[in-house]
Amino acid sequence: MKKYLAELIGTFWLVLGGCGSAVLAAAFPELGIGFAGVSLAFGLTVLTMAFAIGHISGCHLNPAVSFGLWAGGRFPVKDLVPYVIAQVIGAVAAAAVLYVIASGQPGWQPGGFATNGYGDLSPGKYSLMAVLVCEVVMTAVFLFVIMGATDKRAPAGFAPIAIGLCLTLIHLVSIPVSNTSVNPARSTGVALFAQTGALSQLWIFWLAPIVGGIIGAVVYKVVASNED
Amino acid sequence: MKKYLAELIGTFWLVLGGCGSAVLAAAFPELGIGFAGVSLAFGLTVLTMAFAIGHISGCHLNPAVSFGLWAGGRFPVKDLVPYVIAQVIGAVAAAAVLYVIASGQPGWQPGGFATNGYGDLSPGKYSLMAVLVCEVVMTAVFLFVIMGATDKRAPAGFAPIAIGLCLTLIHLVSIPVSNTSVNPARSTGVALFAQTGALSQLWIFWLAPIVGGIIGAVVYKVVASNED
Amino acid sequence: MKKYLAELIGTFWLVLGGCGSAVLAAAFPELGIGFAGVSLAFGLTVLTMAFAIGHISGCHLNPAVSFGLWAGGRFPVKDLVPYVIAQVIGAVAAAAVLYVIASGQPGWQPGGFATNGYGDLSPGKYSLMAVLVCEVVMTAVFLFVIMGATDKRAPAGFAPIAIGLCLTLIHLVSIPVSNTSVNPARSTGVALFAQTGALSQLWIFWLAPIVGGIIGAVVYKVVASNED
Amino acid sequence: MKKYLAELIGTFWLVLGGCGSAVLAAAFPELGIGFAGVSLAFGLTVLTMAFAIGHISGCHLNPAVSFGLWAGGRFPVKDLVPYVIAQVIGAVAAAAVLYVIASGQPGWQPGGFATNGYGDLSPGKYSLMAVLVCEVVMTAVFLFVIMGATDKRAPAGFAPIAIGLCLTLIHLVSIPVSNTSVNPARSTGVALFAQTGALSQLWIFWLAPIVGGIIGAVVYKVVASNED
Repeated sequence: MKKYLAELIGTFWLVLGGCGSAVLAAAFPELGIGFAGVSLAFGLTVLTMAFAIGHISGCHLNPAVSFGLWAGGRFPVKDLVPYVIAQVIGAVAAAAVLYVIASGQPGWQPGGFATNGYGDLSPGKYSLMAVLVCEVVMTAVFLFVIMGATDKRAPAGFAPIAIGLCLTLIHLVSIPVSNTSVNPARSTGVALFAQTGALSQLWIFWLAPIVGGIIGAVVYKVVASNED
Repeated sequence: MKKYLAELIGTFWLVLGGCGSAVLAAAFPELGIGFAGVSLAFGLTVLTMAFAIGHISGCHLNPAVSFGLWAGGRFPVKDLVPYVIAQVIGAVAAAAVLYVIASGQPGWQPGGFATNGYGDLSPGKYSLMAVLVCEVVMTAVFLFVIMGATDKRAPAGFAPIAIGLCLTLIHLVSIPVSNTSVNPARSTGVALFAQTGALSQLWIFWLAPIVGGIIGAVVYKVVASNED
Repeated sequence: MKKYLAELIGTFWLVLGGCGSAVLAAAFPELGIGFAGVSLAFGLTVLTMAFAIGHISGCHLNPAVSFGLWAGGRFPVKDLVPYVIAQVIGAVAAAAVLYVIASGQPGWQPGGFATNGYGDLSPGKYSLMAVLVCEVVMTAVFLFVIMGATDKRAPAGFAPIAIGLCLTLIHLVSIPVSNTSVNPARSTGVALFAQTGALSQLWIFWLAPIVGGIIGAVVYKVVASNED
Repeated sequence: MKKYLAELIGTFWLVLGGCGSAVLAAAFPELGIGFAGVSLAFGLTVLTMAFAIGHISGCHLNPAVSFGLWAGGRFPVKDLVPYVIAQVIGAVAAAAVLYVIASGQPGWQPGGFATNGYGDLSPGKYSLMAVLVCEVVMTAVFLFVIMGATDKRAPAGFAPIAIGLCLTLIHLVSIPVSNTSVNPARSTGVALFAQTGALSQLWIFWLAPIVGGIIGAVVYKVVASNED
């Protein structure tokens, strides 16, 4: 049970820290942190939690990571469903807390509430196809890096830095496209509170990251095994 | 005595570096560092000092950290009061030095002087309730990460990076809400020099971070112990 | 074969992440990541891949690195051509994927497509001579740092951080000059898709980085060997 | 001789990377890196070189560091003069290369050329007193962190990160005040090429950093020794 609780708290932090920076601080007049600050925030949620709970649950914080690590032979199938449930609960709880904080500003409206989307719900109005390709490829590389950085031949102890900063990098590239998901739990948590049609597009942010994550983990397995 | 002196110097650096970046550089015309730069600065004060004095005092630099680590069973009660006193002295000294430097600019006025606040004294005019929730939750996660990253099962040597960048992340999210305290000493140091009513709101930045810190440390203890 | 595949995937990530951040996110209205965000992105592609595939291929991702390490006595000549071919294929594939994603935005035109150039094709209209000097010196220091950080006397495990952040630093300085290459594969991949005359200037971004890389590696060898 | 050459090359990189980012990229229209990017660049010059040549020369790159480490009992007096000479040569050479690159932009004028100054030559017009206090205190903490992070009780291998990011932090705070020196060699290199009266103020950027550096190193020695 303890590792499920760790996943719940960790995903709570990912959504509160990442989406929180987007909702509260990205567009603050003159001094706002912009997409670069939000990218750093998302990455640091994973970096900090990986050092804090890596030794308890492995710190997935993301159903696409759990599915990918399962496909890569690093995670037992019996833990898949409880991990995903814990991650979604943590994400929804974080979105609720963020809503409470954000609504303490006079005149505030949730609007998109840091949700992911395509077409009119994409920050840069990118098409469904662009969003699909982007999310699949980004999550694939994410899992490739996770598999590699936690490989026992990689330097010990550095994986939280590699993985956290990989999530920062993914956001630096893809916020304009899809507002960056690569994480179905993160997308679900905030979608429940948005005033837009984000919920109707949620399926893509379950499908694409999980497919991408599985591809990336399997590709790593192929590249890394049986070296010749 | 040496460890109290280390805490004093470390907290001096936290306030001079963090609040200094806010007062001197955040809003510099065209080239200013904004909230993202201030967030990085606060985190780096802790990262740098944790490498420099972690082996001397543990590098708390923050009464909420000292209370939290005490609640988490990692810090002896007899050191609690001297640590907090040293931290407050360091913070006040830093605010004084910052005042001397900042007032060397023609026409400068202290104004808010990087103090924390709610309502009219919040950067984004957030309510007392939003500030309370934000400060409690942020400090709780901060202590959760501190407890986890210094757990003997976590990778050795990386804790200063995890903890410092956690403080950066907290600022990326919450500067617009409360100007980010999560540290009663930091709030106290600059409040003595502000031209606003920051001192009258100071109680909240002792109460919320200490309560949050205790909660976060205890939650970590529960999640991490007796794994099943 | 596995190490060539690793180089292909790694260079794919360097171009998709680095050039992708430039094309998609650098100039996004109000919230764009600017040259600083692009600099961070390029560096993080190398940092993340060095942790993920350093133990498979050494993670060069760059013909200038492969030539430099060969000149520095760290890389066998027989792998030079296959590494460079894999790197170029990965770079071209990444540029193609980036083109697919970017063209999903209504009204988008490739324009310069993050290519490198001098004169009218330099972001700041820098001369051929300035670009030559800049690319040679930057790549020389890059290889000097790579040689040093992977020296067996340097702290183990940290090389991906040193090398990745060196690439970030190089971009922080030189994007205005040449849009920063220091990597012939990166320059080639995007040049194929640009609407400008970037292809006609491509020779300089093969010549200067490789010459610079060889110089830097040899200088390190001289400085580090036979200490007196 | 090899260690002097390493210091020369390392200081070359500090000035080319740090001052180069300021001259070439800080104020680029729309996409410029600002003071935050320059701060990151200065810190990364030290971080990268400390991994590359730390094992050769200790990677001081700064007369104030050499004097401080001598005062702190970590550096032999016989190397003091040759180190400082090598650092100044490297800094001047870097300023010359930077001048060549920067002058490749049509219509460019050196202006302040990233020099340090007070009064009219301070970015924010800060007084001589403010600049003196700021430079002394910043260099003192810098040496305090250097002494602590290289203490044998600190985690091994992390010193380049702690020290490099400390220099980033110092710049995040103090660029508006003095354009941040804390390094007499860095101030000297660019002062030779400026069109302003920077050379006439150079004495302060030898005096203040060296005094501050000695103070910081001695304070660390007192705090760290004979623990009770």
